[in-house]
Amino acid sequence: MSDVIQADKLRLLIERIERLEEEKKGIADDVKDVYGEAKGQGYDVKTMRKVVALRKLDKHVRDEADAMMDIYRTALGLT
Amino acid sequence: MSDVIQADKLRLLIERIERLEEEKKGIADDVKDVYGEAKGQGYDVKTMRKVVALRKLDKHVRDEADAMMDIYRTALGLT
Amino acid sequence: MSDVIQADKLRLLIERIERLEEEKKGIADDVKDVYGEAKGQGYDVKTMRKVVALRKLDKHVRDEADAMMDIYRTALGLT
Amino acid sequence: MSDVIQADKLRLLIERIERLEEEKKGIADDVKDVYGEAKGQGYDVKTMRKVVALRKLDKHVRDEADAMMDIYRTALGLT
Repeated sequence: MSDVIQADKLRLLIERIERLEEEKKGIADDVKDVYGEAKGQGYDVKTMRKVVALRKLDKHVRDEADAMMDIYRTALGLT
Repeated sequence: MSDVIQADKLRLLIERIERLEEEKKGIADDVKDVYGEAKGQGYDVKTMRKVVALRKLDKHVRDEADAMMDIYRTALGLT
Repeated sequence: MSDVIQADKLRLLIERIERLEEEKKGIADDVKDVYGEAKGQGYDVKTMRKVVALRKLDKHVRDEADAMMDIYRTALGLT
Repeated sequence: MSDVIQADKLRLLIERIERLEEEKKGIADDVKDVYGEAKGQGYDVKTMRKVVALRKLDKHVRDEADAMMDIYRTALGLT
């Protein structure tokens, strides 16, 4: 990149990124609100987060991870 | 929370979170795309990210951080 | 902090931090090596990391988390 | 990995990792202490962290990053 850059083009790119980051932050706050709502209704947020992560996995991947954990936990007396 | 939880309410909350997380991921991908576009036009992504972070700061905060860095860099011969 | 700082004292502090960070990185590499060794012997690193995390918890905390997960997984058909 | 794993070997590996993680945490605490000490002497921790990061870079890399930042900051009126 030469020492001279097109400031206006750079500014437009930066502003697009900032608008998207703003939007993303808004949604992250919405997620926090839903977890807050759930907590208010007595649900456990930590467990909900683990369940959200689990639901991203295919069933066979989940089952295999469960089976592996059982073997390791049993072997180490963590049952 | 009693051992019995309202599964349907939990499912609705989880699904709301999943939709929001999906939306957030979509926007994160859009941000990546803009940086990719900028890179394609010869801009330096790393520097752009630093500039985006800087622009979040109030001018006086930014100026103070700059002044501090100058003092420390000079003291340690990092100029 | 006045514009004049005691450069030598700052340098000593920075160098102490750097030595500690170096040491910390060395140990992090050792941890990686042990996981690599375990992988070479057929153990599953991902499961090992989860087990290491689990072992940090008191048994009653672990048991409660397990019970909660069972309730939530059953409620959402993730069994 | 067969359903039967050598529990004793797994335990030894896990315990080695735990000892190393413990050691690593101890050093991380030492780093925090040094920053605390520096803060007590009036140094700015945030700036110190940036300087520690900068000192990891080769001079020419640092100079190029500085030059790039100057160009971008000037272009966007962040001077």
